[in-house]
Amino acid sequence: MSSRPLTVAIVGATGAVGVEFLRCLAERRFPVKELRLLASARSVGRELSFDGKALVIDELTERSFEGVDIALFSAGGDISKRYAPIAVAAGAVVVDNSSAFRMDPEVPLVIPEINAGAIANHKGIVANPNCAAIIAITPLWPIHQHNRIRRMNIATYQAASGAGAAAMDELALSTRAYLDGRAFEPKVLPHPYAFNLFSHNTAIDPATGYNDEETKVMRETRKIYGDEELRLSATCVRVPVLRAHAAAVTFECERPIDEARVRALLANAPGVRIVDDRERNLFPMPRDASQQDDILVGRIRQDLGDPTGHSISLFVAGDQLLKGAALNAVQIAEHLLAA
Amino acid sequence: MSSRPLTVAIVGATGAVGVEFLRCLAERRFPVKELRLLASARSVGRELSFDGKALVIDELTERSFEGVDIALFSAGGDISKRYAPIAVAAGAVVVDNSSAFRMDPEVPLVIPEINAGAIANHKGIVANPNCAAIIAITPLWPIHQHNRIRRMNIATYQAASGAGAAAMDELALSTRAYLDGRAFEPKVLPHPYAFNLFSHNTAIDPATGYNDEETKVMRETRKIYGDEELRLSATCVRVPVLRAHAAAVTFECERPIDEARVRALLANAPGVRIVDDRERNLFPMPRDASQQDDILVGRIRQDLGDPTGHSISLFVAGDQLLKGAALNAVQIAEHLLAA
Repeated sequence: MSSRPLTVAIVGATGAVGVEFLRCLAERRFPVKELRLLASARSVGRELSFDGKALVIDELTERSFEGVDIALFSAGGDISKRYAPIAVAAGAVVVDNSSAFRMDPEVPLVIPEINAGAIANHKGIVANPNCAAIIAITPLWPIHQHNRIRRMNIATYQAASGAGAAAMDELALSTRAYLDGRAFEPKVLPHPYAFNLFSHNTAIDPATGYNDEETKVMRETRKIYGDEELRLSATCVRVPVLRAHAAAVTFECERPIDEARVRALLANAPGVRIVDDRERNLFPMPRDASQQDDILVGRIRQDLGDPTGHSISLFVAGDQLLKGAALNAVQIAEHLLAA
Repeated sequence: MSSRPLTVAIVGATGAVGVEFLRCLAERRFPVKELRLLASARSVGRELSFDGKALVIDELTERSFEGVDIALFSAGGDISKRYAPIAVAAGAVVVDNSSAFRMDPEVPLVIPEINAGAIANHKGIVANPNCAAIIAITPLWPIHQHNRIRRMNIATYQAASGAGAAAMDELALSTRAYLDGRAFEPKVLPHPYAFNLFSHNTAIDPATGYNDEETKVMRETRKIYGDEELRLSATCVRVPVLRAHAAAVTFECERPIDEARVRALLANAPGVRIVDDRERNLFPMPRDASQQDDILVGRIRQDLGDPTGHSISLFVAGDQLLKGAALNAVQIAEHLLAA
C-alpha cells in the first residue's frame, strides 16, 4: 500500500474502541491524509478530536467508503457483515474488530506479534481477534515456538469495557447506587455488576456448555497459532473492573519446561512485559495494564498439578481497548501500509 | 459431649467472621447455655446482639476459658497459637478458623460434608480449613468418591471479606473515592482495590512461586480428602467483590466422566446447590451466594482441553464468611455436640 498518506475510515467512531482507534492512529503517527469518522445517525454531527483537530462524525452509509484506503470497523458483527463487503468493493481494506469474519477461512485472523505474515493473504478483510484471546495467548507464542504447547487452560477476569462504553458506565453507576443503598436495574448486562462477577454474558452452546466468548477464545487461538491440534479449555468471567482483562493460564508443552526458560523466552518478546516481583507481591493487575500497550505477564511458575514438568502457570493482564482491540487493529493497518 | 446446653466462647467476636459465628449459633439453635464474647482490649465493653439479647464483650485473657465447653476462634494465627492451648488446658474443645494448626498431624482438618468422622480423633483442637479450599472442594467430594479425582486446577475470584472487615471497608471506601475522582491510599491491602484485582496478598514461597493462600488450598485439600497423591495447582486472586468467593475449577478423574454424571452426583449432595441454567445464562455469582449456606455450582461441562474425556470444568461461588468460615466451624461444633 506504500507509505503515502492514506484515507482512513473509522466505523463505530463513538464507541469505546472507536475513540481508542483515534488515539492509536495519532500516537503512532499513522500517515493519515484524511480521517473519516462514521457512526449511526444518532451520533452525526458530534465532534471528536484527532491529533488536536476537531472532526465531525458522518453517518455510515453505503457511500461512505469511496476513496477510503483502510477502514477500521468496531460497531458490532451486524454492521461489519453489512458494510465491510461494501467497503471492500469500494477499494478499501477492512480491519474488522467484530467476530463476523474471524473464522472465515478466506480472512486472516491476526495478532501481529504472532502471524503478521498472514496479512498478505487478505482478500479485502483482515480480522482482529477476540480481546480475551489476544491478551491470553500473545505472551505464550514465544513459548509455543520453542516447545510446542499442546494444551491450555484459561480462566479469564474480563473487564466491563469488552461489553462497550455503556457497560463501563453501568458498572460505575450501579456501583455508586450500591454504595448509596439505592436500587439499580441493569440494562446493558444481564446481572447486577456492583461488587459482583458473572459468567460471560454471551449465549451458551447447548452442545458443549461453553459460551460464545469461550468458543471464540478456543477456536481463534487454534487459527492464529495455525495449530488445529492445540487443545484448549476456557472459562470466561466478567469481573467488576473497568478496562483491562486478566487471565490465569496453565499450559502444557510437548517437552519439559521450567519457569527460568519461560522467563528467558518472554524477556524480550514483543508486546509483552514481565511483572513478576515475588518479594513485593507485584504481579499483573488491570490498574497497571490500563492505558498500556504491553501485555503484563507474571506469576510464572511450574504447574504443580503436572508432576512430569511439562506445565507452567502464569497470570496476564492487558488493556482490553488497546492491545485487545484498537492497538492490535492499528498494528495490522501498519503492516498493510508496509506491504 | 451430649446435648446439654453448653458454654461457648467466641474469640475474635467483633471480626467479620466473629459476628457470623453469633448468627450461625442463633439460627441453627445451637444449645448455648452461656455465650462468652472475647476480643482484644480495645473492643471490651462493646455490645453484640445474640438471639435478641445484648452481650458485652470481655477481654481475652488466659483466664477466659474456665468452664468453657467449646471455643470458636477467629482472631488470626498468633492469637490461636497463644490461646488455643490455654483453652484446651481449661477443658474446652477449640474449633480454630486460623491456619495455625491446620497442617498439624494431631489436628483434624474438617469440612463436615467430607470428613466429619475425623472430628472424633481430636486432641482438643479441630481446625477449620482455608475458605477458598472449602468453597472449591466441597462440591467435588461426591465426584471424588465415585471416580477418584487425580488432578485439580483452581483459579479463584476471592472477595474482600477473606481479608477481614477492614478490607471490606477499604473496598467500599476506595471505590467511592475512585468514583468521586479522589485519591485513596490503601492501608489494609497492598494494592488499589477499586475496580482492580490482584494476586492474593500473602507471601510467595520463593521455592515454588506459589503464595501462601495457594499453598494452603493445595495442602489442605490433600489432607481433607485424605489423598496425598492428589495433584493440585491453584491461582488465588483477590477481586473487587465484598463477601463471596468464586472459583473456576477443572479436574481430571481416574476414569472417563461426563457432565450428566457430575450433575447427578451433585443433585443431592449436602451443602451444594446446582445453579446451571444455560438458557437464562444464570450461573453461580457472589451476589447470589452471599448470605447463603449452600455453595453454588454451575458451568458444569466437559473440559475440552482433555480429549480423553476424563476432565470436567465447573464454576463455584460460596459465602466466604459462612461456609468458608463461621458456618463450617459451627457445623464442626454440632458434630462435637453429637459425639
